[in-house]
Order: sequence, then structure tokens, then C-alpha cells
Amino acid sequence: MPKLVDHQERREAIARALWRVVDQHGWTRATLREVAGEAGVSLGMLQHYFASRTAMLIFAMEFAADRTADRITRGLATLDQPPHPRDVLRLVLTEMLPLHADARASSRMSAAYVLEALHDPVLRKQATLGLRDGRSMVERLVREAIAQGQIAPDRDPDVETDLIIALTGFTPLLELEVIEPRAALAAIDQHLDRLFGSLVGP
Amino acid sequence: MPKLVDHQERREAIARALWRVVDQHGWTRATLREVAGEAGVSLGMLQHYFASRTAMLIFAMEFAADRTADRITRGLATLDQPPHPRDVLRLVLTEMLPLHADARASSRMSAAYVLEALHDPVLRKQATLGLRDGRSMVERLVREAIAQGQIAPDRDPDVETDLIIALTGFTPLLELEVIEPRAALAAIDQHLDRLFGSLVGP
Repeated sequence: MPKLVDHQERREAIARALWRVVDQHGWTRATLREVAGEAGVSLGMLQHYFASRTAMLIFAMEFAADRTADRITRGLATLDQPPHPRDVLRLVLTEMLPLHADARASSRMSAAYVLEALHDPVLRKQATLGLRDGRSMVERLVREAIAQGQIAPDRDPDVETDLIIALTGFTPLLELEVIEPRAALAAIDQHLDRLFGSLVGP
Repeated sequence: MPKLVDHQERREAIARALWRVVDQHGWTRATLREVAGEAGVSLGMLQHYFASRTAMLIFAMEFAADRTADRITRGLATLDQPPHPRDVLRLVLTEMLPLHADARASSRMSAAYVLEALHDPVLRKQATLGLRDGRSMVERLVREAIAQGQIAPDRDPDVETDLIIALTGFTPLLELEVIEPRAALAAIDQHLDRLFGSLVGP
């Protein structure tokens, strides 16, 4: 079915154009018209693929989430097998922070999407589901690590999950260069080392 | 100088109108025209006080920062004297998270401001200064607590400062109701209890 493949490719090309607009010029410039220009298609063509700005944003965020998942999957393949949950959590966190170009584009999209979602019920539902999925994935890793004795049994899995996810709070500090990437990574490593009880002196 | 006082009051009324627009309708609606309507002044009057949207945003953020500082000062007065640094840090964090209406409005302003700042050099400079000030205040508290033996001397003050500030990463989770306020507060308490080495059972 070559036609369907073309459709998906065109939609992905438009999503990438939206990321570029958000990354380079900010969310307020991410109108259908601006994105059509960036994607090199007519406004009519873009509207053939996305009936509304909301539909375009939802597709672009889902596509960004898929790409992040792909990067994590590729990263997992480079870890010791089976991977240690500490390494998996570190990988997930580093892919969610704006530490390289792809992750930065996703991170900016995501931050803007959350703000827009506060005032748009359809976006809000999608954004909430996305954040809940991310939280559930981290919670599963934490619970498995507790079950397997890699995290002390007296740690509360809900609290530890939330503390790990809070580390995405480095995003504005990194974006505005208040802290450097190596400082964010040092703090993440410190937090995970303590969680996994492997804090032996230098 | 009654004229000067009037000016400041008018500017603050406009800043509050901007917060309401951002809080209720989102950043993309926060145009000069929309804010003038919300403040009940003409567009020309608003432009008399703020020559540009950027000037208005900078004033509104500075005013928001002042109000947050006022809330923290009022909170400090309710703590044991002299206040324990753990309690001060908890107060600062809870005032930075969207846990009540005023803090929520500031938090939404701040998140949108950071995103806008990425693509506007003037805003960027202001936003960076604001974040650096906040980080310095937390770092000073952490260093004092280490010096006074309230935090163990082997803790790295830079890493601990960054880990505390990262807790503002609960913002999107709270805004989208992925976690409840009491879960965020439980995680903050757990983190501070460990930092201050006072983890004794309930």
C-alpha cells in the first residue's frame, strides 16, 4: 500500500517541520501557516493532513514520544545485558533532558505542550496520558529493583518514582545555561547512587 | 509624590491582569490588546506604561518574583526563630510549586517566560538572572547548613543545591494532576529529611 506509506511519511515530515519551528522560533510561531512554510507544503496540503492545530500538535507529540522511545531502545542495546535498572533510569532521564539536539527539540515541544494543554481539554487529556505513561514506566523499574534487592526494601516506590521524575526539573536550568550538562549529570548520578545504595567513597 | 505612586499602582494592576490572562487562557493569548482589555485600560494607556510586550513581561515577572519573596518572608515569620534551614528550603520549594492560586499563577508565568526567553535575547538575560538568583539563595542556605553541621560535611553543596532545585520538576505533574499535592510534599519531605540526616521512623 504505497499510498498509506506516503501519507505517514508526509505527516512525519510535517511533524519534524513543527519541531524545527518550535526549536528555533518558539511555540507562539508554530501556526499551521508557519509550519506549512517550514515543511515546504501549501497550507491547504497541511490542512489535508491535519484538520486543526490541535490535531497537528497531538501527532507531533506522539511522534516525538516514539522517537524518544527509539533513542532509549538504541541506548539500552549499548548497556550490559541484562541492563541494570540504575543504568536504564539514567538513560531515560538523559534522553528526557535537553542534552543533545533531538532531546532538546522534544523537550521544548513537551514544555510548550504542557502549557497549551492547561487551556485545551483535548490536549490536556493527551498530555496527561503521556505523563502518566512515563511515570508508570519509571515506577515499574523502581518496583522491580526493590523486588530484586537492588533498591533497599524500606524505600517507598511511589516517593522514589516521583523523586526520579522530578530530576527533569533540570530542564529550564540547562536551557538557560544556569547549570552545565555535566552538573546535571553529576546530580543525577549522585541521586541514583544513593537510591541504589552504592555510595562507596572515592 | 502621588503621581509616581499612581504609576506604580497602574503598572502593578496591569501586571496582575497579565497573570490572570496567562493563568486562565494561556500565554499565547497574552497580547498587549488582551491584557489591556483584562486590566480595563485602553491599548494606548497600556502602551504608555509598557512600550512593548517584552517590557510588560519583564515587569510582570519581576513583580511576580517580588510577590513570591513576600510570601516567603511572611512564611518565615511563622517558623521557629531562628528558622531551621530545612524548614526554609521547604517553604521556598512549596512557594515555587503550583500548590495554591498565587503560586500557580507565578509558576505558569515563569514556565511560559522561560520558553519565550529561549528566542528573545532581552528576556533570556532577565530569565537567566532570575534563575541564577534563585539558585544562589538555595546554595547559600545549603552551605550555611553544612557549615553549621545540619547537613553532613561530605555532601557536595553544588550537587545538593541542584537536587533541591530539581524538585521544581514536579510542576507539570501537579498541573496535569498526574501526582497530587500531598505526593509532591511527601517527596520533598523525604528528600530534605535525608539531606538533613534526620530520617528517624514515624
